[in-house]
Amino acid sequence: MENEEEKRKEKYESYVIVHNIAKRHNVGTLARSATAFGVTEFILVGKRDFNAFGSHGSTSHLRFRHFHTLSLAHSFLKERDCDICGVEITDNAIAVNEHPFTKSTAFLLGNEGTGLSDKECEICDFFIYIPHYGGGTASLNVTVAASIVLHHYGVWAGFAERSREGNKFLVAEKPANQMKRNFCTETAEAIAEERKVKKENAANGFFNEEAASSNLLDALFDS
Amino acid sequence: MENEEEKRKEKYESYVIVHNIAKRHNVGTLARSATAFGVTEFILVGKRDFNAFGSHGSTSHLRFRHFHTLSLAHSFLKERDCDICGVEITDNAIAVNEHPFTKSTAFLLGNEGTGLSDKECEICDFFIYIPHYGGGTASLNVTVAASIVLHHYGVWAGFAERSREGNKFLVAEKPANQMKRNFCTETAEAIAEERKVKKENAANGFFNEEAASSNLLDALFDS
Repeated sequence: MENEEEKRKEKYESYVIVHNIAKRHNVGTLARSATAFGVTEFILVGKRDFNAFGSHGSTSHLRFRHFHTLSLAHSFLKERDCDICGVEITDNAIAVNEHPFTKSTAFLLGNEGTGLSDKECEICDFFIYIPHYGGGTASLNVTVAASIVLHHYGVWAGFAERSREGNKFLVAEKPANQMKRNFCTETAEAIAEERKVKKENAANGFFNEEAASSNLLDALFDS
Repeated sequence: MENEEEKRKEKYESYVIVHNIAKRHNVGTLARSATAFGVTEFILVGKRDFNAFGSHGSTSHLRFRHFHTLSLAHSFLKERDCDICGVEITDNAIAVNEHPFTKSTAFLLGNEGTGLSDKECEICDFFIYIPHYGGGTASLNVTVAASIVLHHYGVWAGFAERSREGNKFLVAEKPANQMKRNFCTETAEAIAEERKVKKENAANGFFNEEAASSNLLDALFDS
């Protein structure tokens, strides 16, 4: 059993796919959860205008990738031998706490208002949902739903737990211009990796600060 | 085993305690999750100015209670034979997925910036935390953390799952002035109960619309 868990830890990766998100400020909080739960890459499909409001700086720790179409994202993930799991309350969806995972998995999140479209459902290998026990809402906030799913995937995959210091988890070091916010140190290798990720994200045009601040009010009234 | 689950379903209740929340707009999304996961009451301690931004109308389905001090909230919950569980990364905290629950439980959430204070920790019977697997953030958004915890409690307690229709969970009927948003009907008893909750919340001064809208921008820049 322990050997099996060890194997998972090395073998499995998780991805988040976000397609045409309506509420751009959801991406920030989602990125924060994604880094906490060890997500390998955050894949944006279609629209690429979003902001990092709510990320608490965690976007510099996360690798982002952009595809213009769902079909391109699908091909990329299949090359990496990933299952694509739709997070949606379909008839044949399995409760997330049953851990219906078998390999590396990319989680496709629906638009906040309408859920997954037929086209989105077509690329999914299976579906999961989060059971509700009360009648006050038809669905959860998309970031909340995604976070519950990523948490369960990490438990199933047996990912190694992050070290803690006091009442916080240790944060990996950030690039130099954000150093003053840090309170712990990492290996030189980890620092190099963080810088590389930040550089790649910048090269892809993600998290342009000017764009983010002009979107802040739009994002609020969009919801 | 099935009998044991049946017993839990009838026996156990969950509560959320929020003490001096800093970001008032977190309450709305948290209320939405609380109703989804069958929370009995949402207990606000100390400051009572908050708004329901992000609740998607679910606050009219949730019973709110206010206490001026933590000690009064503690007495109330002990009268109801509840455990008080701090959601905090303490040394002796147990991972939430281990389900360290034994009876009805009230979950005490820390302030977003500083976590649980010594005084808050004193009233807790035990602590739970959510494991992290990546180093991008020291902690999760408070609503995300609370939602993961409430989800697990519902799984442990064996709460009855809410019915679904299409790709949404059925929403209980709301009071008359919100009728046009509904898409399903409930029993007369359920309608009466919903109205009673809404009336009680209003009598307690919760969700005054004028106050909520004036807080909207404050809430944004508070974060």
